[in-house]
Amino acid sequence: METIRRTKIADLLKRRDFGAQVCAKGWVRTRRGSKQVSFIALNDGSTINNVQIVVDLAQFNEELLKHITTGACLSVEGELVESLGSGQACEIQARKIEVLGTCDNSYPLQKKGHSLEFLREIAHLRPRTNTFGAVFRLRHHMAMAIHTFFHERGFFYFHTPIITASDAEGAGQMFQVTTLDMNQPPRNEDGSINYDEDFFASPANLTVSGQLEGELAATSLGAIYTFGPTFRAENSNTPRHLAEFWMIEPEVAFNDIVDNMNLAEDFIKYCVKWALDNCADDIKFLNDMFDKGLIERLEGVLKEEFIRLPYTEGVKILEEAVRNGHKFEFPVFWGADLASEHERYLVEEHFKRPVILTDYPKEIKAFYMKQNEDEKTVRAMDVLFPKIGEIIGGSEREADYEKLYKRIEELGIPMKDMWWYLDTRKFGTCPHAGFGLGFERLLLFVTGMSNIRDVIPFPRTPRSANF
Amino acid sequence: METIRRTKIADLLKRRDFGAQVCAKGWVRTRRGSKQVSFIALNDGSTINNVQIVVDLAQFNEELLKHITTGACLSVEGELVESLGSGQACEIQARKIEVLGTCDNSYPLQKKGHSLEFLREIAHLRPRTNTFGAVFRLRHHMAMAIHTFFHERGFFYFHTPIITASDAEGAGQMFQVTTLDMNQPPRNEDGSINYDEDFFASPANLTVSGQLEGELAATSLGAIYTFGPTFRAENSNTPRHLAEFWMIEPEVAFNDIVDNMNLAEDFIKYCVKWALDNCADDIKFLNDMFDKGLIERLEGVLKEEFIRLPYTEGVKILEEAVRNGHKFEFPVFWGADLASEHERYLVEEHFKRPVILTDYPKEIKAFYMKQNEDEKTVRAMDVLFPKIGEIIGGSEREADYEKLYKRIEELGIPMKDMWWYLDTRKFGTCPHAGFGLGFERLLLFVTGMSNIRDVIPFPRTPRSANF
Repeated sequence: METIRRTKIADLLKRRDFGAQVCAKGWVRTRRGSKQVSFIALNDGSTINNVQIVVDLAQFNEELLKHITTGACLSVEGELVESLGSGQACEIQARKIEVLGTCDNSYPLQKKGHSLEFLREIAHLRPRTNTFGAVFRLRHHMAMAIHTFFHERGFFYFHTPIITASDAEGAGQMFQVTTLDMNQPPRNEDGSINYDEDFFASPANLTVSGQLEGELAATSLGAIYTFGPTFRAENSNTPRHLAEFWMIEPEVAFNDIVDNMNLAEDFIKYCVKWALDNCADDIKFLNDMFDKGLIERLEGVLKEEFIRLPYTEGVKILEEAVRNGHKFEFPVFWGADLASEHERYLVEEHFKRPVILTDYPKEIKAFYMKQNEDEKTVRAMDVLFPKIGEIIGGSEREADYEKLYKRIEELGIPMKDMWWYLDTRKFGTCPHAGFGLGFERLLLFVTGMSNIRDVIPFPRTPRSANF
Repeated sequence: METIRRTKIADLLKRRDFGAQVCAKGWVRTRRGSKQVSFIALNDGSTINNVQIVVDLAQFNEELLKHITTGACLSVEGELVESLGSGQACEIQARKIEVLGTCDNSYPLQKKGHSLEFLREIAHLRPRTNTFGAVFRLRHHMAMAIHTFFHERGFFYFHTPIITASDAEGAGQMFQVTTLDMNQPPRNEDGSINYDEDFFASPANLTVSGQLEGELAATSLGAIYTFGPTFRAENSNTPRHLAEFWMIEPEVAFNDIVDNMNLAEDFIKYCVKWALDNCADDIKFLNDMFDKGLIERLEGVLKEEFIRLPYTEGVKILEEAVRNGHKFEFPVFWGADLASEHERYLVEEHFKRPVILTDYPKEIKAFYMKQNEDEKTVRAMDVLFPKIGEIIGGSEREADYEKLYKRIEELGIPMKDMWWYLDTRKFGTCPHAGFGLGFERLLLFVTGMSNIRDVIPFPRTPRSANF
């Protein structure tokens, strides 16, 4: 008999041509049954749903059946039949089974119901579980939504460098990259490290943001976005921090802060809508298992326009809340960097929808943000979300060479690292704006997971870079 | 008068509603004309084409006109009119001009015709040139083609780690990542570096490939691809090497080497077709300026099926060529790792189309490739292209635990770094296959550029990590 071409289980489950001969390949999730018949739940990763394989035990030899255990890899041929009991519309009546890979009882995923903590320790196997299959399929879909959103709007994907000799932003929290022998580095006469012998002939670090290079691209290609890994050597062991994470940073020439807010709101709604439209089964699973409010929260974001409010007004609302007896852990006053509890109060308690806070005090924001006429605030904008707090941070950029130069000087940023950035303001400067989205923050929102280590395949955290 | 909404120049040049009031914003490429009228070529990065702005000098004040110099940033409002002379179908008769950013004569891009070498030194400004605008728009389009190709086929984009404590492949050419003080690293009693105090509590490196982690994902999600930066600390100052480059690595459960070849051929044809369909203007420019054979070569790849040939047959053809008097720099014999000249001979001279060479000697290929029955060769496949040589390298993977374990042992790869990889063969192993494409290699092919430093925005090479 001829070999039948394999069909992915995601496609198989949509078919209604009962009676067709089909082939499925995948891994055994469960096996149950009686002395006469076995029911195998087979999964191939294409969907969270399993196809049920019905095995008439009398038709197969015992040696083969012995190897059909949880985790084993099978190739199954048989007839597609209508299903009454499996929770799916169709199942396969097995005619031929081949065990491609056996799986003995040392397999760590044999039993269900492992804790997320345990699964983190076997990050190499956890994509085989329902939970992480769902999370990583959503991760793919969100990446695709992002590329499609920007492509449709004429943005160009721009690769900013990962390794950089420039240390403009926060050198203290950067990872150093080197090919020198740590044990016996070459030294200058004065005892300092001789970086001339290092690979790049100077100290080099991993990037903390592609924004500055992104501005170079926006002021030539018009509208660009980055989507790449960024790094923080912050010694924070929290459910919100990763040493290695992915960022998306669009930057657009001729956009002002209002265009920027419109873009951010359109963008995030597009992503959330994509998730609901394309990942219904995975989201339903996560909603039922981890976060009963997930679907409602996602649909909520799409329903209404985001509130847009100056920081100063936001602080007034928070101060009013304190006067009315609301307790915050951290103090609220004009000039304070808002904590997550403050952001969430505005979003979840006060407005009951997403908020874009604008015009922050310049002291708590970065040097490149456009200075307002009041000389106290800058044209920053943070998008605040339920459960997450800040999900997007951005601003209109300072386009004026003199003002930018002065601010860099005031903050003591070394001018030797800034000349190329300042050139964008020197030669044909233009108004422009952009923002950054932490990809894993978006994933926390669309998956309902509560630890950021569970939305990236191989989390890098203090004391852990396994696999 | 109300402000008119800006239209991107790419969209403007498609319009035929002459008489409409329009607004364009962009940078002055050239200005020429007479005492009565100026013609400004304005570009905003959305396309390689400029829109011509016609300025009746009598209508504008001299102070403003003085600032309309090469590189200056303008906002122009006026009437869209049919054009006879500008090379485009339409142009703008200016009614209102605002200089958003001036540009004095210290601007390095004032005159045309800079060498690629010079432009590399001002990598922060080179995206403003026709050449690099074209290259980076193509770079975006190739990335979008790749994501779309895989998404349409049910593959999931999977982020493999950038920082890794595993040094399975070629530790000698890896960059070390650390937060230790290079000058005075903490030491153990025996004088060795105390890595327990490093960020990850162990030595850590930048990834050289995401394949091994990609296999973990393929054996759970079914079909995945990576698309991320990879690093080689190779001290090679050649037009073919970068220390930081982007790789695409698809990996598919249940695929054998034939499926893998089909996927690779479909994939690369899809990318080339996308470039021809979507980037005609940019490709025509590069064809005319740098590589007169570019369009013909791109169309050539689409026309015919790739030749598929075992390495052993390929070597016979090369040996025959040598016997017939063809001179190669490097010797040809069974067991030799083919040089670019050999690959190009097969592709450009002998077959005159792309070639997929298979079943290489195991000694010159990686440990994870599926071993053939002859015990001498492995199920490798390299796709060889005109001008480029090897553009894709891949294989069916060794699925057998015992064989793989033995090969890892033979090659002396530390088993402590391999346990998690071996688990894929231990628990429900399955046939699978994949390949790697160097993104910049693809870009060299579709742009016709000859130096790899000119197809990535900020090249990282020995002694250079600027911007």
